Amino acid sequence: MKLLSGGICAVRGVKAYGIKEGKKGLAIIVGKGNAAGVFTQNKIKAAPVIVMNERLPCVMNAIIANSGCANAFTGERGLEDAKRMSQLVADELDVNSKSVGVASTGIIGHHVDMDWIERHVKDVMNGLTSKSGGSEAAARAIMTTDTILKQVAVEVDGVRIGGIAKGSGMIEPNMNTVLVFIYTDADFSYDVLYKCLRTAVDDSFNMVVVDGDASTNDMVLLTATGKKHISDHHFQEGLNFVCTELAKMIARDGEGATKFIEVDISGARSKDDARKAAKAVVRSPLVKTAVYGESPNWGRIVSAIGRSGADVEADKITLELSDGANVVTLVKEGSIVEGVLDQARALMVRDIIVIKADLGLGNGGARAWGCDLTCDYVRINAKYMT
Amino acid sequence: MKLLSGGICAVRGVKAYGIKEGKKGLAIIVGKGNAAGVFTQNKIKAAPVIVMNERLPCVMNAIIANSGCANAFTGERGLEDAKRMSQLVADELDVNSKSVGVASTGIIGHHVDMDWIERHVKDVMNGLTSKSGGSEAAARAIMTTDTILKQVAVEVDGVRIGGIAKGSGMIEPNMNTVLVFIYTDADFSYDVLYKCLRTAVDDSFNMVVVDGDASTNDMVLLTATGKKHISDHHFQEGLNFVCTELAKMIARDGEGATKFIEVDISGARSKDDARKAAKAVVRSPLVKTAVYGESPNWGRIVSAIGRSGADVEADKITLELSDGANVVTLVKEGSIVEGVLDQARALMVRDIIVIKADLGLGNGGARAWGCDLTCDYVRINAKYMT
Repeated sequence: MKLLSGGICAVRGVKAYGIKEGKKGLAIIVGKGNAAGVFTQNKIKAAPVIVMNERLPCVMNAIIANSGCANAFTGERGLEDAKRMSQLVADELDVNSKSVGVASTGIIGHHVDMDWIERHVKDVMNGLTSKSGGSEAAARAIMTTDTILKQVAVEVDGVRIGGIAKGSGMIEPNMNTVLVFIYTDADFSYDVLYKCLRTAVDDSFNMVVVDGDASTNDMVLLTATGKKHISDHHFQEGLNFVCTELAKMIARDGEGATKFIEVDISGARSKDDARKAAKAVVRSPLVKTAVYGESPNWGRIVSAIGRSGADVEADKITLELSDGANVVTLVKEGSIVEGVLDQARALMVRDIIVIKADLGLGNGGARAWGCDLTCDYVRINAKYMT
Repeated sequence: MKLLSGGICAVRGVKAYGIKEGKKGLAIIVGKGNAAGVFTQNKIKAAPVIVMNERLPCVMNAIIANSGCANAFTGERGLEDAKRMSQLVADELDVNSKSVGVASTGIIGHHVDMDWIERHVKDVMNGLTSKSGGSEAAARAIMTTDTILKQVAVEVDGVRIGGIAKGSGMIEPNMNTVLVFIYTDADFSYDVLYKCLRTAVDDSFNMVVVDGDASTNDMVLLTATGKKHISDHHFQEGLNFVCTELAKMIARDGEGATKFIEVDISGARSKDDARKAAKAVVRSPLVKTAVYGESPNWGRIVSAIGRSGADVEADKITLELSDGANVVTLVKEGSIVEGVLDQARALMVRDIIVIKADLGLGNGGARAWGCDLTCDYVRINAKYMT
C-alpha cells in the first residue's frame, strides 16, 4: 500500500471544488460510478439523509454538500431544498438529479439559504479541477468547527482510494456531524461496495462515533468511478486504511482538543466486548479530563472498562500507558505496579496518549480514538448558536 | 407528607456524627434494624461493595463510611481493610462486625489510610448524637467534590424517613460515587424494604446515574429501625420523595455546575422509551454546554431524543423550555414555532432549566435530572488526583 497526496482527486476521473464564505460553505464533487452509502442511525434524520437513503445504491454522477446548516428537522420544505440542491448540479451536468448526492452539516432546525447556494453553484462548478487543490477546496468548504483539513489517498495493487471528511464535534456520543466522501477507481458492484464500506466504517468511524449515537446528518458515501480490478480482500485493506486515517483525523481535531487518545483493548472475551470497553474508555469525561490535566488517574480507566458491559475480572487486567514510543505498565494482571506514577506523569505531557488494556480473558481486540475534554470544548459549544 | 429537618437524625433511634480533615472524612451512623441495599452494576466493584453485597439483607446496627479513598481495585488487602473498618465500630458497640455496614468514596487504586481511621473512630463515636447536627456532620464527612450538604427527611402517616447522600461527579455516565444512607422508623421485612428501595432508586438516583454506568462504589442503604406501621403504598410515596429530593440535590451539585436541568418526557410509546429519551437529553454534552451558554439550541435536544433508542417521529414532537414558571413552546407537533427564540433566550439566563418534550406517541413518561457542563467541571477533574 502506498500513500498518495491529493485526497479524492488522487482518483482518476474525480474533480472537486468548494468555497467557504463565513459560516456557509459549498462543495461539489464530480465522478461517475456505482455508489454505496452508510447513514446515521439517529431516528431524527436530516433531509439529505432521507433523500440519499432512498436513492442509494445507484450510479452517482456527483455530490453537492453545504456547511452552516444541517437541513434537519425542516419538514417538507427541507426535503424540497435537498432535492433542489441536487437539481442545481444535475442541470449543470445535464444528468438526472437523482444521480447527484446531497449532504449537509451545521445547525439543526434551520432552513438552508437556497438563495446563497443558487448564487454560488456556478462559481463552484467553474472551479472544478482534478488537481489536488480541488480536493482541498472541497474538504475545506464542508468544515464547520473543524480546524484541520481531512483528506487521505492510497494506492493498493494499482487501485486508488481517496477520501475527504469533516467532523469535529467529537465528544461522543454527540458527533456534531461526520460527512465522508470516498472515491475509488476500482470496479465493484453495489453489493461488494456496500459490504466493504460497512466493514471499514465499523472499525473506523464507528469507533469514534457509536452506532445509534450519531447525529442527524452523518453520512459516508463511496463511489467507484473506474474499471480497475482488485481482490475484495486487498480493496478492503485499502478502504480500512483510508477510513481509519480519516477517523483518527476527526478524533485528533475534536473540538477544543489538545491531545489525541487511542484506546487499544486486547484479551477480551470477544471482539464485541473489546469494542464496548474501548468505546467506554474513550468516551469517559473523567478519563478525557484526566488526559487534559496530564494526570495518570488510571482508576478512571479501570472503572470505565468495568461499567462498559464487557466481561471483566479485576485480577486479570493489565494496563499500560504510552505516548506511542515509551510504555509504562501501571497494572499487571490485577496488581498495582508501585513506583511508576512519576514515569506515567512524565509521559502524559505528550500530545498522543495511548491507553492499552489487556483484559486477560480471550482473543478479542479493538481500537477506539478520541481526544481530551477541555475548557475550549465547553466555550465552543456554549456559544455555537450565536 | 410533611417535610422535617434533621436528615437521618429525624428518625427516632438514629445517632450520627462525622469528621472531615483535609480530603479525608469519617462518618458513623448508629441505628438498628432490618436493612436492604442497592449497589453499583460496575463489574469492577470496590471492596466495601463486595463486602456489603455478601452481608445484606441483615439486621444492621451501624454504618461506617470514609471519604478520600474509594478502596476500589485494592485486592485482598482492600477487603481486609473494609472488614476491619466494620470491626472497629463493632468493638465499640459490642456487636457482630457483620452487622456494621461499610462504604467508601474517593480515588480508585489506593489503599485506605487505616491508621488515620483507627485514630479517629473513637472521636466520631464520642460525637454521636440524635440531634440534627449529627446528620449534618455525617453528611459533611462523606463529601468529596460536593459543595452542598445533602439531607432530607419526611413524615408520612406518622412514619419518618430520613436520608443523607453524597455525589457530585455528575457528568453521567461517570458518577464519581454516590453514597446514600436512609433510615426509617417503619417496620418492614427485608423483602418489602428491598422492593420499595429498588422502585424508589429506579426513578430517582438511576435517573441521574444510568444503571450499569455507575462507579465502582455506588451504594444506597435503607435501614428500618422502628416498629411503626404504614401501608407499603404510602411508605413507597415517602421513600420516592426522599430519594428524588436527594437525587435532585446531587444533580444540582454537579461538579462545576451553574444550572440545574430537569428533563420531563411525556407521550412516549412506553415508560422505558421515556426513560431512554430523558437520560439521553440530560447526558448530552452538547445540550449541557448549550444550557451553560444560555443558548436555546433546541436542535441538540431533538437530536439527543432521536438517538436515544426511543421510538420517535419528527412530526409528533412538541418541545417546551421552562424555568419552572414561564414556558416557551419551541416546537409544536413537529412544526417549528417562529419568533420565540428571544423569549427562550431570556428564559435561559435562569438557574433552573426545565426541558419538556411530548413525543405524541403514547402514555410513557419519565423525568431525569442533571446540570450544565462548564469549564469548572474540566478544571476540577483535570487535577483531581494531584
